[in-house]
Amino acid sequence: MRMYDLIHKKRNNEELTNEEIEYMINHYVSGEIPDYQMSAMLMAIYFNGMNDRELSTMTNVMAQSGDMVDLSSIEGIKVDKHSTGGVGDKTTLIIAPIVAYYGVKVAKMSGRGLGHTGGTVDKMEAIPGLKTNFTQEEFFNIVNKTGISVIGQSGNLAPADKKLYALRDVTATVESIPLIAASIMSKKLAAGSDCILLDVKTGSGAFMKTLDDSINLAQKMVSIGENCGRKTVALITDMDIPLGNNIGNTLEIKEVIETLKGNGPKDLTEICIKLAGNMLYLANKGNIDECEKMAKEAIENGYAFQKLVEMVEAQGGNIEYIKNPEKFEKARYSLDVILNEDVAGYISFMDTEGLGIASTMLGAGRETKDDIIDFSAGIILNKKVGDKVKKGDVLCTLYTNDNSKLENSKKKVLSSISIDKDKPKEIPLIFARIEKNNVEKS
Amino acid sequence: MRMYDLIHKKRNNEELTNEEIEYMINHYVSGEIPDYQMSAMLMAIYFNGMNDRELSTMTNVMAQSGDMVDLSSIEGIKVDKHSTGGVGDKTTLIIAPIVAYYGVKVAKMSGRGLGHTGGTVDKMEAIPGLKTNFTQEEFFNIVNKTGISVIGQSGNLAPADKKLYALRDVTATVESIPLIAASIMSKKLAAGSDCILLDVKTGSGAFMKTLDDSINLAQKMVSIGENCGRKTVALITDMDIPLGNNIGNTLEIKEVIETLKGNGPKDLTEICIKLAGNMLYLANKGNIDECEKMAKEAIENGYAFQKLVEMVEAQGGNIEYIKNPEKFEKARYSLDVILNEDVAGYISFMDTEGLGIASTMLGAGRETKDDIIDFSAGIILNKKVGDKVKKGDVLCTLYTNDNSKLENSKKKVLSSISIDKDKPKEIPLIFARIEKNNVEKS
Repeated sequence: MRMYDLIHKKRNNEELTNEEIEYMINHYVSGEIPDYQMSAMLMAIYFNGMNDRELSTMTNVMAQSGDMVDLSSIEGIKVDKHSTGGVGDKTTLIIAPIVAYYGVKVAKMSGRGLGHTGGTVDKMEAIPGLKTNFTQEEFFNIVNKTGISVIGQSGNLAPADKKLYALRDVTATVESIPLIAASIMSKKLAAGSDCILLDVKTGSGAFMKTLDDSINLAQKMVSIGENCGRKTVALITDMDIPLGNNIGNTLEIKEVIETLKGNGPKDLTEICIKLAGNMLYLANKGNIDECEKMAKEAIENGYAFQKLVEMVEAQGGNIEYIKNPEKFEKARYSLDVILNEDVAGYISFMDTEGLGIASTMLGAGRETKDDIIDFSAGIILNKKVGDKVKKGDVLCTLYTNDNSKLENSKKKVLSSISIDKDKPKEIPLIFARIEKNNVEKS
Repeated sequence: MRMYDLIHKKRNNEELTNEEIEYMINHYVSGEIPDYQMSAMLMAIYFNGMNDRELSTMTNVMAQSGDMVDLSSIEGIKVDKHSTGGVGDKTTLIIAPIVAYYGVKVAKMSGRGLGHTGGTVDKMEAIPGLKTNFTQEEFFNIVNKTGISVIGQSGNLAPADKKLYALRDVTATVESIPLIAASIMSKKLAAGSDCILLDVKTGSGAFMKTLDDSINLAQKMVSIGENCGRKTVALITDMDIPLGNNIGNTLEIKEVIETLKGNGPKDLTEICIKLAGNMLYLANKGNIDECEKMAKEAIENGYAFQKLVEMVEAQGGNIEYIKNPEKFEKARYSLDVILNEDVAGYISFMDTEGLGIASTMLGAGRETKDDIIDFSAGIILNKKVGDKVKKGDVLCTLYTNDNSKLENSKKKVLSSISIDKDKPKEIPLIFARIEKNNVEKS
């Protein structure tokens, strides 16, 4: 077999066989296929795509290129959840306690934030004392005991994806839907859960800016999951406004606590009930309606909040902060962003990526991998899309420990918010749900 | 400037600026841009192409990456000719003497053969004593004295093309019309002639198998030539049957001699008059009809043959062989290929590439760069497309100095010839002529 012939086939839009795909990935990882051939292949895939069989095979071979986490020592059905990344997305920390309360096991490895999106692990580390690095044995013990643990990525998961991603990153082949699907799913397959819930964000704050692309990506990932023996469902959710009102690590933990106590913002609460309902559904707890009702009840009766306390405690966090969120250290500086223009109308659009960048500028995120996060930095939105505003209104408040960062961040916020005299059309929180071959639009 | 951004632009089908193209080629040649980025770019060009401006700029930068031959010490108008390669294509050695007789200067660097096509330099070396490697000064002196010299490629011409071609060869990006056009024209620009005649072959024996592709390639090359200040014309000529009757080095030299004496095969004579006519036209010797008439006369009055003798003598060849072609050493073995099937009809198709391979199998060509050529080996066709044939007819005769090669070559020949009971439609020798933006179909 020669890599040349495989590039030639894909370039001519012919299908690669399973043996050819195995050869290609395994010999690339071993270094026998050089980068310059793989980058030509990646560009050919960018243009000609891959069908479901090719993509499932490739993803599976990528997963098998490293450690395959064996969760069999954890009893019960293990459900993983993946979000394609958004601004103010703290849903994992709300829904994992909900489903864990019903006996579904969540043994989740999560990422750190980079650029305009945050990462769950960073948010958790805003809780004093809480650790996110454990040995596999410790990790399994926590899940077996409390039903839930969320830790940082460890081990050698899908090294083929790491090598391919590094090459895509320098050859303009990141933005390929099949390659994105394979990258995400190879890590999910290696992470070992029985079921996978995918939260595919769409809109200005997401990687996928259009609904069509988001549905396309979701369909490919669901197909890969099912073809590789994992029960998989995807929801397409809105990322045209930040989720909830708080952006920034400590601020988001506070919002997680409020939401699990039943006092969260409506949009965040609603989407968490949908996501948790689908995770319960994947774990065979009932039909979708029943499962959503269960999710709602777990918040209402306080059991989900209790699960969060258990998880924080099990990971070494100081639960006094969870019980009394006012204990969290506050940022030294804050600034109200006030609408100074002589306009009256409605917020018609928020550039969510812009708000994520504004939050990063305050110290809440990393611009490069080595940056240190200011946990208390961030933004609390006072007005969101659809809200009526007039001159003098506080649009949001900025928080930081570095005074010098406020002005630039404020400029970024103001340029990210559009105001119109007409009230904008209401956008659903969830655009579609994908299960097997069915796309159910909301 | 970052190569990443240039790949991204081309991938999205956006135009590259001239500065970006210069950066890309020059930094690739210097090694600052790695192969893996260039191969992704080449694949993106394969899919999205390049417009005339981009392509002319790239070709010019590729030409300037090495020596630019300065022909200014040769008086008069220098006309170069390039053929995209074919089987039995000995036209250069017929038309160069014709135009040199009229004072047009031909200072030509030519290639060697590889695979199923022959090379002019190999054919010339079939003449005892003849040299094809000279210093630039000797080369210029020969052209100034006799009006004509054809030598092997020397110097550091278009090293960017060499490096790019080697990468294309292993990344399945050879078959891209803009990249083929840039590759050919970069070397022609560097070779220094004022005018360029392109003979773009089409059909089963050519690199371009379809007329549309051939016209597309020709248009791109003419546009590059004109944009870079060279008067350029292209003819699209048939390569669905070999040119003339003889394939193989000595056999082709004999056919060159016969043709310049006015006794050549009709197809070869006709096409040489067209090609020579166009070279004279490029050198401002008159309109096309006048120039073709001049070409014809140069054969009829024997002056072109005299020029061939002068050229051979100037390059050290023994002119006795030219004057008495029967002196050429003959192959020790020969075999008539006879039609043994009980069919009667017409030759409907000759797989010209197949015949080229059959000739190479006899020793007339190289399968790898280091093979040594058997000059007297080859094929003389006795029947060509459109000829009536019946059982027992000699289709062609094979020549070789290695007895063991005859049978396999014969099989290849027989599998390359199709016979049908109906006489095939006559195919023109020249399909189209391209000058500036005009495509004039025959």
